[in-house]
Amino acid sequence: MKIGRGHKLLFIGDSITECNRTKGKDNELGAGYVSYVNALLQVNYPEMGIRVINKGVSGNTVRDLKERWQEDVMHERPHWLSILIGINDVWRQYDTPFMKEKHVYLDEYEETLRTLVTETRHSVEGIILMSPFYIESNKLDAMRCTMDQYGSVVKKIAKETNSLFVDIQEAFDRLLKFFYPASLAWDRIHPSAPGHMVIAQAFLDAINFDWKKEL
Amino acid sequence: MKIGRGHKLLFIGDSITECNRTKGKDNELGAGYVSYVNALLQVNYPEMGIRVINKGVSGNTVRDLKERWQEDVMHERPHWLSILIGINDVWRQYDTPFMKEKHVYLDEYEETLRTLVTETRHSVEGIILMSPFYIESNKLDAMRCTMDQYGSVVKKIAKETNSLFVDIQEAFDRLLKFFYPASLAWDRIHPSAPGHMVIAQAFLDAINFDWKKEL
Amino acid sequence: MKIGRGHKLLFIGDSITECNRTKGKDNELGAGYVSYVNALLQVNYPEMGIRVINKGVSGNTVRDLKERWQEDVMHERPHWLSILIGINDVWRQYDTPFMKEKHVYLDEYEETLRTLVTETRHSVEGIILMSPFYIESNKLDAMRCTMDQYGSVVKKIAKETNSLFVDIQEAFDRLLKFFYPASLAWDRIHPSAPGHMVIAQAFLDAINFDWKKEL
Amino acid sequence: MKIGRGHKLLFIGDSITECNRTKGKDNELGAGYVSYVNALLQVNYPEMGIRVINKGVSGNTVRDLKERWQEDVMHERPHWLSILIGINDVWRQYDTPFMKEKHVYLDEYEETLRTLVTETRHSVEGIILMSPFYIESNKLDAMRCTMDQYGSVVKKIAKETNSLFVDIQEAFDRLLKFFYPASLAWDRIHPSAPGHMVIAQAFLDAINFDWKKEL
Amino acid sequence: MKIGRGHKLLFIGDSITECNRTKGKDNELGAGYVSYVNALLQVNYPEMGIRVINKGVSGNTVRDLKERWQEDVMHERPHWLSILIGINDVWRQYDTPFMKEKHVYLDEYEETLRTLVTETRHSVEGIILMSPFYIESNKLDAMRCTMDQYGSVVKKIAKETNSLFVDIQEAFDRLLKFFYPASLAWDRIHPSAPGHMVIAQAFLDAINFDWKKEL
Amino acid sequence: MKIGRGHKLLFIGDSITECNRTKGKDNELGAGYVSYVNALLQVNYPEMGIRVINKGVSGNTVRDLKERWQEDVMHERPHWLSILIGINDVWRQYDTPFMKEKHVYLDEYEETLRTLVTETRHSVEGIILMSPFYIESNKLDAMRCTMDQYGSVVKKIAKETNSLFVDIQEAFDRLLKFFYPASLAWDRIHPSAPGHMVIAQAFLDAINFDWKKEL
Amino acid sequence: MKIGRGHKLLFIGDSITECNRTKGKDNELGAGYVSYVNALLQVNYPEMGIRVINKGVSGNTVRDLKERWQEDVMHERPHWLSILIGINDVWRQYDTPFMKEKHVYLDEYEETLRTLVTETRHSVEGIILMSPFYIESNKLDAMRCTMDQYGSVVKKIAKETNSLFVDIQEAFDRLLKFFYPASLAWDRIHPSAPGHMVIAQAFLDAINFDWKKEL
Amino acid sequence: MKIGRGHKLLFIGDSITECNRTKGKDNELGAGYVSYVNALLQVNYPEMGIRVINKGVSGNTVRDLKERWQEDVMHERPHWLSILIGINDVWRQYDTPFMKEKHVYLDEYEETLRTLVTETRHSVEGIILMSPFYIESNKLDAMRCTMDQYGSVVKKIAKETNSLFVDIQEAFDRLLKFFYPASLAWDRIHPSAPGHMVIAQAFLDAINFDWKKEL
Repeated sequence: MKIGRGHKLLFIGDSITECNRTKGKDNELGAGYVSYVNALLQVNYPEMGIRVINKGVSGNTVRDLKERWQEDVMHERPHWLSILIGINDVWRQYDTPFMKEKHVYLDEYEETLRTLVTETRHSVEGIILMSPFYIESNKLDAMRCTMDQYGSVVKKIAKETNSLFVDIQEAFDRLLKFFYPASLAWDRIHPSAPGHMVIAQAFLDAINFDWKKEL
Repeated sequence: MKIGRGHKLLFIGDSITECNRTKGKDNELGAGYVSYVNALLQVNYPEMGIRVINKGVSGNTVRDLKERWQEDVMHERPHWLSILIGINDVWRQYDTPFMKEKHVYLDEYEETLRTLVTETRHSVEGIILMSPFYIESNKLDAMRCTMDQYGSVVKKIAKETNSLFVDIQEAFDRLLKFFYPASLAWDRIHPSAPGHMVIAQAFLDAINFDWKKEL
Repeated sequence: MKIGRGHKLLFIGDSITECNRTKGKDNELGAGYVSYVNALLQVNYPEMGIRVINKGVSGNTVRDLKERWQEDVMHERPHWLSILIGINDVWRQYDTPFMKEKHVYLDEYEETLRTLVTETRHSVEGIILMSPFYIESNKLDAMRCTMDQYGSVVKKIAKETNSLFVDIQEAFDRLLKFFYPASLAWDRIHPSAPGHMVIAQAFLDAINFDWKKEL
Repeated sequence: MKIGRGHKLLFIGDSITECNRTKGKDNELGAGYVSYVNALLQVNYPEMGIRVINKGVSGNTVRDLKERWQEDVMHERPHWLSILIGINDVWRQYDTPFMKEKHVYLDEYEETLRTLVTETRHSVEGIILMSPFYIESNKLDAMRCTMDQYGSVVKKIAKETNSLFVDIQEAFDRLLKFFYPASLAWDRIHPSAPGHMVIAQAFLDAINFDWKKEL
Repeated sequence: MKIGRGHKLLFIGDSITECNRTKGKDNELGAGYVSYVNALLQVNYPEMGIRVINKGVSGNTVRDLKERWQEDVMHERPHWLSILIGINDVWRQYDTPFMKEKHVYLDEYEETLRTLVTETRHSVEGIILMSPFYIESNKLDAMRCTMDQYGSVVKKIAKETNSLFVDIQEAFDRLLKFFYPASLAWDRIHPSAPGHMVIAQAFLDAINFDWKKEL
Repeated sequence: MKIGRGHKLLFIGDSITECNRTKGKDNELGAGYVSYVNALLQVNYPEMGIRVINKGVSGNTVRDLKERWQEDVMHERPHWLSILIGINDVWRQYDTPFMKEKHVYLDEYEETLRTLVTETRHSVEGIILMSPFYIESNKLDAMRCTMDQYGSVVKKIAKETNSLFVDIQEAFDRLLKFFYPASLAWDRIHPSAPGHMVIAQAFLDAINFDWKKEL
Repeated sequence: MKIGRGHKLLFIGDSITECNRTKGKDNELGAGYVSYVNALLQVNYPEMGIRVINKGVSGNTVRDLKERWQEDVMHERPHWLSILIGINDVWRQYDTPFMKEKHVYLDEYEETLRTLVTETRHSVEGIILMSPFYIESNKLDAMRCTMDQYGSVVKKIAKETNSLFVDIQEAFDRLLKFFYPASLAWDRIHPSAPGHMVIAQAFLDAINFDWKKEL
Repeated sequence: MKIGRGHKLLFIGDSITECNRTKGKDNELGAGYVSYVNALLQVNYPEMGIRVINKGVSGNTVRDLKERWQEDVMHERPHWLSILIGINDVWRQYDTPFMKEKHVYLDEYEETLRTLVTETRHSVEGIILMSPFYIESNKLDAMRCTMDQYGSVVKKIAKETNSLFVDIQEAFDRLLKFFYPASLAWDRIHPSAPGHMVIAQAFLDAINFDWKKEL
């Protein structure tokens, strides 16, 4: 398994990552995929003492990540860093088409993400880049097309920077052969519990998690 | 215009019709298409004294309408009756596929709706039947296909019973050439203000509303 | 229709314009005439991509508009600007006659409004000036008389500055032949849904809105 | 002073009488004219031990009083009874003209009030009948005209049954020479503190209250 | 009557004066004696246009008045000023005897009050000084004795500065022959509605208010 | 110590006994003297396994105890029973003198209490009767005089029925030589924490509690 | 995998099973092990269409299960039934030792559980019995000893009735070699997210869940 | 008794000391051992006029005390100072083992506490040092072992600085022969009312409190 003994693993992203972590108390990890990843890491690798941190903030685009990168990433000095961003960058172009000041187009997205990853790459053991996704099975759908473009950019940057790439969109696509989108996410964006488990599984597979490890 | 002087016009349906009418006070008509229809009727036909009543209830299927028909329709003795039902009948099949007890399949839908309309037809001046809709432009989408079948049933019953048919799905389809679904309804079901105006316009056109009437 | 493709249309005013826009979320346009105007523009002119912005603030007089003009109007760089102000300027003279510091008398009103309109006129495509109103049919009523004076000032400034003038008071007066004031506004100021539709209609007629436009 | 030692004085009516008595705790008399009457009776006639009871209920018409008369009046066995009813009977005809089921027209008003007063007259020391009112100075206003008719009916019944009549409308009319209606009641119905004092004064004058009594 | 046409009358003091004025909205005068005084002034002298202002703050001692005197009194430029302070100065000595930092002893009270009155005397038409009070009929009670000393100081300063003195303690003492303290104030400090009317009456008598004035 | 191993000790009374036990959760004993008695019993006699139950209800008089006696006392089958009642029986006569239906005069109090104690005496190991009290040092105060009469009745019934009598009034009187009433109870009725400790001490002394017992 | 296509799997138990399922909306499965089991089943076996139902109720003992068995189990007609009960049966003996009416001792526990399982065994495909547990590593701890006895009873009944037995206590014991109890459950009872994952894993292993299944 | 006439006794610590003092109003002392100590001091030594102050803050470690020492201790100038700290210093090491930034290890604890006590010793009459505790009877439990080490450090510092040492752990150990930990503290840390009485007793014994003192 890639994460090492006593390592700090930091997740940054938008509301998918946040998943209510700022509500209630004793809830630093939220109730979504970050919490699932942590639970499975603690239970299967209790001897490793891995520290998981959630820095997801609802509504964020890559532009917002840039603003809080120094404080929320660099200052925390993680060993591993996972980034899941881009959904709002695309979504705002489709749900509020006239509020152009909220749109983050592909150029800005690519440039900003590349800068963040490149500048951080040598301060950490490794970076995991997850593709943004849209739980829509029609690949000709306009917003799905755009999201796929953003996903391709993530894949490209992962390759350039020798980061791990996790294709969340593909993981959902496999399930969409069996489920209608509305049963995995009421608005095709925010996953249900099974949807968050899809992300957790894809993430853990990417870091060579052993699902059948004996204590 | 079809609605007569001093007539009572009753709308029944689900959350699209309800639109928060049960929340807050002095809000009997809700904040959606029923309120818009009423506002336009009062403003363009102030001399008519038309009474509009909203009996939408969130989450309802045609099975629920049947249960409350006696109290919420017959007991109110409206002159005109408008029905917009079927969205939840279809949606539950797709967002909670395993809770089969909540699904209302096409046969039950058709039989129940036909019975309600037939039994009521002669107690009122007229009935307006609106098609259920799904704000999804991909006509091959599974849920859209099913919704279209339910819409066809509504059209058939309208014809059989000499009711007015209003094709809400078609009205939304016209706009979907210009807008992405998410900008008309965050979950492709519950319309934004412009979405509700689409329904109101389609309804008013069906009853020969004069948009340029002078006082 | 006067508003052009991709144009930004900004409404500024008091609680009539605000209409709860600051309450709840995803409610930037409020629930009143601004929302109706936007809905009808989007639905009848979807190909135009018009952006509507609501900058109404409850309780505002023209003195308050002046204070926030730079930030809320100039900074937003709208193509079209609609102003509906003056109701509180008058009302405070009648409901709290002894709190003179809250009164904005006719001279100050005229001078302030003229300055704002004049200074802005050349930065925008056009300005729409709506008359303040009082939903009181007795034209001899003291507060109605004062309100009519303020309305005349608005008309005069519209003429001087080549702005569009919309006579909201007259639009309400037409309806007051059929309705008692209390049924259009519980306090003769804050309109019900039909009352807001009156304002929306008058506004849209002034910009040559086509009510029967085909898509 | 007419009220005797140890007597129970019961006020019944609508929201003007209720004045929030059902909200908060230790607030049985509300915050309006009933509380003022009680305060002045206790302070100027502390030796009398008069018990004041408030049975106002918001939104009530004379039709509602009839329904709760047995429990809220007869069962309480007051020595003196004060009735202020009719405002909602009239108001509903003007603010919700199409909800005719909520209107109480003059015939029903007169008949119901006369029955209640006549049946109760011999169980009590005395009855005070207060006129319903509308804080509108224009006597030609439609709702004011109707309210005046209802007031005349109250005066007639007072005479027939040998009850005390208190002309609240006239008391407000005297003040309307100095104040604009909005400063005495924001909706011309629900009085401000000074408005409630007007009612309290008129009531107390009618029962020969001594304003300058020495202890 | 002493207060002149168009004059501003400002009340300052502690929770007795405040009486919830900071809670709810449209409640600038609170629900206690200040509101009663205003109501009676407006109703009996509507032609005078008197402006009443409430600057009571819960828990205040004379030490607190001194801190906010510049802003809450001088800055408001009243014609008449009424002061009711001292209850908390005394009470804290008895209910929290060990928190000595909250006690304001007689020397500090006298010196501070004299300074405030003297410095303000020539900026206003007149000052009304009301005695602090304790609704306790046993004049040998320790806290009553102390309160009476503070009342004497107020009387002395009134005389020195040619201010009006209103003996609220004496007004309550008259009523205590008839009522047990608990029925005028649950904690012997905060008056019920009749208790506030006692203060209002005493104040109004002191300024020669005409209780029977005709309009 | 009188309470035996494994015994159930039930306290019944008014708000002094209840002390918020019905608010919050895991708070069955409230925050007053019952909780203190229980804490001291558990800590000094942990080997005894004594079960304490609180059945105080705010606002109760002896008339209310009678109504719930069967359910709240007999049905619980306690070994020991402690009763502290009478404060509201007296207080209502003084704070709401005109609401005579809420007063419980001495005859009814004595008769009801005697009946309850007599009927229960042989079902329990012992009964503790605590005197009602008023934290007022002036023994000539009207309400204090009345309270003392009720206390004498409790003492008499204790003697007749061979119950333990605890003189809470006397316990407070000892402290009133040092403290002003307001520092022990803001309204002279509801004790502060030290006031509740006075009751707990008096109760525990009456059952021969050993304050210095070694474990 | 043991659960068949289209099967209904019902979980019954106490707060561990409930895990807030009754709070919020769209939360029928709660946020604990039941939700995790469902997520993993849906994601790894999407083709199976398994319906999971949560009938956990906070605070329940086996005595409570018996009362609601007919409605919550038999009436639902599940194919598979999972039971996790006994924690409160034991806990109440230790945290509220004197409230004996809340204790369920071993005899009653065994007899009740055996009856429920035996009566239901032939109506379902299979029953999974999970051991109650206490996250305490000291096996000599009194409550841990008792809990182990209850666990043995569950194991015995599983064997007698040919049910699957899942040893949750053992699963936690394995982790307690690495973690201090407080990090798995703040009160040694209610698991954190990792603790719930332990239960989910143990359950899924018992039904031969394939952790690496390909879609 | 050690505390002198008119002395100020200040308690500082964590949530055990705070015990909700910051919630609700008129609750400066909280509802735990500080309130019990104060109640018993006031009741048994009313002639002494001792002022008790609570400066407990939930979640505090000795590191937090150091930060607020100047303001919360030195600035208050107490005569006696009681310190109960260390529970969170230890607990965080066990309930959130990976958040190492929240752990306060033994060296830092000892050095910080010694510095605070030493620097303060000569400004006060005396210091009482209470041992941190863990209501766990198994002395081999890892967290109990660590807590005992911290307790030894407190004892050592007490000796070095001639402070009073109160062994709270030992006081709880005596009770743990009779009670299971869960009945004294649901999480083995936060005491029930009897648990707080244990602390109060131990504290009072240490200052030679006379439990049977006569007034």
